[in-house]
Amino acid sequence: MTQTKTRRAGGREARRTARANPLSDALRPIRPGLEGGTYRPLSEAQMQRIHAAVLDALEQIGLADAPPSGVAYLTGAGAIQGEDGRLRFPRALIEDTIARANRSLTLHGREARHDLDLSGHRVHYGTAGAAVSVVEVHSRTYRDSTLQDLHDAARIVDQLDNIHFLQRPMVCRDITDNREMDLNTLYGCCAGTTKHVGVSFTEPGFVRDAIEMLHLIAGGEDKWRDRPFVSNSNCFVVPPMKFATESCLVMEECIRGGMPVLLLSAGQAGATAPAPIAGAIVQAMAECLAGLVYVNAVKPGHPAIFGTWPFVSDLRTGAMSGGSGEQALLSAGCAQMHKFYGLPGGAAAGIADAKLPDMQAGWEQAMSNVMAGLSGLNMVYEAAGMHASLLGFCLESLILGDDLIGQALRCTRGIEVDEDTLSVDVIRAACIGGPGHYLGSAQTLGRMQTDYVYPSLANRFSPKEWDELGKPDLIEKATEKKMKILSERAAARFDPITDRAIRERFRIHLPA
Amino acid sequence: MTQTKTRRAGGREARRTARANPLSDALRPIRPGLEGGTYRPLSEAQMQRIHAAVLDALEQIGLADAPPSGVAYLTGAGAIQGEDGRLRFPRALIEDTIARANRSLTLHGREARHDLDLSGHRVHYGTAGAAVSVVEVHSRTYRDSTLQDLHDAARIVDQLDNIHFLQRPMVCRDITDNREMDLNTLYGCCAGTTKHVGVSFTEPGFVRDAIEMLHLIAGGEDKWRDRPFVSNSNCFVVPPMKFATESCLVMEECIRGGMPVLLLSAGQAGATAPAPIAGAIVQAMAECLAGLVYVNAVKPGHPAIFGTWPFVSDLRTGAMSGGSGEQALLSAGCAQMHKFYGLPGGAAAGIADAKLPDMQAGWEQAMSNVMAGLSGLNMVYEAAGMHASLLGFCLESLILGDDLIGQALRCTRGIEVDEDTLSVDVIRAACIGGPGHYLGSAQTLGRMQTDYVYPSLANRFSPKEWDELGKPDLIEKATEKKMKILSERAAARFDPITDRAIRERFRIHLPA
Repeated sequence: MTQTKTRRAGGREARRTARANPLSDALRPIRPGLEGGTYRPLSEAQMQRIHAAVLDALEQIGLADAPPSGVAYLTGAGAIQGEDGRLRFPRALIEDTIARANRSLTLHGREARHDLDLSGHRVHYGTAGAAVSVVEVHSRTYRDSTLQDLHDAARIVDQLDNIHFLQRPMVCRDITDNREMDLNTLYGCCAGTTKHVGVSFTEPGFVRDAIEMLHLIAGGEDKWRDRPFVSNSNCFVVPPMKFATESCLVMEECIRGGMPVLLLSAGQAGATAPAPIAGAIVQAMAECLAGLVYVNAVKPGHPAIFGTWPFVSDLRTGAMSGGSGEQALLSAGCAQMHKFYGLPGGAAAGIADAKLPDMQAGWEQAMSNVMAGLSGLNMVYEAAGMHASLLGFCLESLILGDDLIGQALRCTRGIEVDEDTLSVDVIRAACIGGPGHYLGSAQTLGRMQTDYVYPSLANRFSPKEWDELGKPDLIEKATEKKMKILSERAAARFDPITDRAIRERFRIHLPA
Repeated sequence: MTQTKTRRAGGREARRTARANPLSDALRPIRPGLEGGTYRPLSEAQMQRIHAAVLDALEQIGLADAPPSGVAYLTGAGAIQGEDGRLRFPRALIEDTIARANRSLTLHGREARHDLDLSGHRVHYGTAGAAVSVVEVHSRTYRDSTLQDLHDAARIVDQLDNIHFLQRPMVCRDITDNREMDLNTLYGCCAGTTKHVGVSFTEPGFVRDAIEMLHLIAGGEDKWRDRPFVSNSNCFVVPPMKFATESCLVMEECIRGGMPVLLLSAGQAGATAPAPIAGAIVQAMAECLAGLVYVNAVKPGHPAIFGTWPFVSDLRTGAMSGGSGEQALLSAGCAQMHKFYGLPGGAAAGIADAKLPDMQAGWEQAMSNVMAGLSGLNMVYEAAGMHASLLGFCLESLILGDDLIGQALRCTRGIEVDEDTLSVDVIRAACIGGPGHYLGSAQTLGRMQTDYVYPSLANRFSPKEWDELGKPDLIEKATEKKMKILSERAAARFDPITDRAIRERFRIHLPA
């Protein structure tokens, strides 16, 4: 069993003891923030050309429809409003903004262990979207999503190691008042998980209430401002090249309230963005850079995530196809451009066009998620649970997504090359006078926990074992896990005093 | 509809006419041989370190168990046999072999349109393996695979655009005599498809018969030797670092018969190869380089595919896990090393551990297949249909694999950046005085067929459309397509005279 020499001290007993203990975070084979960047769909020269086109678009075409306050902020910063009302951005303004923007961004969790460091090529996966339906896998039906569904999703995300944040994935359609919907969305997410939460707001006037609730949850404004654990997913732009007037005002409010902003540009190639992938990237970059100027004009250095989320059309029908190869390329190309600018960025991946968590869903979610990880995308939004091109969210699929993303994270971690991993001494020991295999070698046992990822629900049984176990079904297993998580007390719940204070101040639709 | 200016001549009518005609191969959005290489899991320095370790392993450890003829070939070339019987390879011999090996390899199809050019980072996907079972999706059972199953798989591969070659994916378990099994395997494959075929041979004595059959199929020895459309998948090595004596003799026979050789090293990390990914790569490279010396010693410049196929163990059980992230990294790392050496190479990807074509199968097949494509692997073996870590082959999964691989090919093709794709003029035309969208623009219509891939069975319906269509099931659709293909006359069948000649000479178990 110990035929190989290791340079590390300690014998078999020490290894046994080490394996019996849970691994420290630093030793776990996968974890939030692993560094990607080995996949580079664009060459350096191609990125330079894209950048030049982006500067041309901002200088020559510019953006329409900024609100009066935005016009004031942006012209104050150096943008020029033309007679056509469009704001155009001199290239020096763009270059200066890129240079001065906040690039050391941490997205906080309500618990510090869930903080996300968005520097370099560090990769984090999470949910997002605005699905209007929940997918019921057993009846194969789509039904309206509710606050309870959202809260359940939050509770499940809280328990999945490889889902690193919760951006609101679906809309609470059982709440008709928009203000109450926004506030209950915030409550339902935060009461379900202590991971970082992302939400959006329908009107600027709702933001102040939300900030008040966050002060209550945090235990005071200072604590909220010190570690803001909620970001604003903000569709500040209506592609092509128009500011979304109302959302810009929401953004201004969020900045004032100390909330990080996700600058979300969601064009759709072939519909609201150019059909070629490069063109869709150019437009998304231009729009988000305009947004970055805006944020920094309101408050220099305010934390902003560069959210180029171009989507893809199925050009036969004009409908969105989030599960396509074109989509996977778009998001990976965007990730590379984020790092060209040195900005913390996010994009969409992991969307299935499939209606159910079937084989199609598996391949659609896998390709874009792994390419996002390999390209070093800081925030991979919509990475789990999303079906029918964002129209349906599925809790079973979310749970299976944890395994799928675990595998993508293993790929993102990549291949370590050092004297120990190169293994020449180990090969020699196995072949010359050794057992002729590596099954019980110290190296194999040592790498078992630190290098290899084992899925939670995906099964690796032989056909014989699988048969003997009654042919376990993947979806059934996911449903079992869902029921188990939802039957337990949610760890993220607010303490009773805080909860009472929130409920006294706001009309919360979730039962206490 | 024509609001954008294009620099190309011709109006709407010309475009309509162009779209009505099938696209020429050069315009199709995906095709065999697209160039990967944008994903580079290893840095240049890491590849140099791997190469140095490979040379150390070959010089210091070497390989055991060469047959006497192999010892003569290899020592004649410059290898040194030690007192322990192992053949060791001076680094100069390895460097010379790499420099002189055949690197402009074309694998021929029986029809020239199926020829595969293995230069550069050109990527081709196909089947392979030695599954012992067929997966029956509707009864969820595994049963022994037969010659008819193999022939059916060949006929299906022949009809799938994105499956570029057929290496024998399963064993004909209904034929007990090994010679008859090998010859019927060859017949069953070639009678089902005119794409390139790969087979293996149990004993060296069977090769001459096979070559005779191939002369009959080709219409003469000269025609066979001019365009050999079958390669020998040869497990010439028993990892770690031992020649497979019998397979080496098969290889020598195939080289004499003019058959390209796939030098297949199939170690399993943690069992017959080191557990660290880098170490498994080192061993596979060392073994295949020894094989390359062997091939070139028998016949300088003989076409050989550098087949580093390291697999992965689930270290909890020691069982193979072909669907893991570790496996995807191993194959991608190997692909990069092939190009470090400038050799035409192949490795395994697309294997599912899942027993059925479910969501797990989708994500397992997708991640390794797309990473293989992005890394520029010339031959992606086992890319479709493979389940239970190579134990079961599934025809429905093969058919769905065509869609899955189509998407991987789209990703492999990557992002084109030029003045047209950058689209600044198109953005300007849409935004300033234009319609504010790109739906009917000339660019969008022009890119519809050349840039976008549409899946054949994967569906992109909205939930409403899907519901109205009776909620079509992915697997049912695949079964329908399978039945349709198998109900039609096989296009690849031999002409009656050839078929009669083959059947007079050999005992063919397939009905005429």
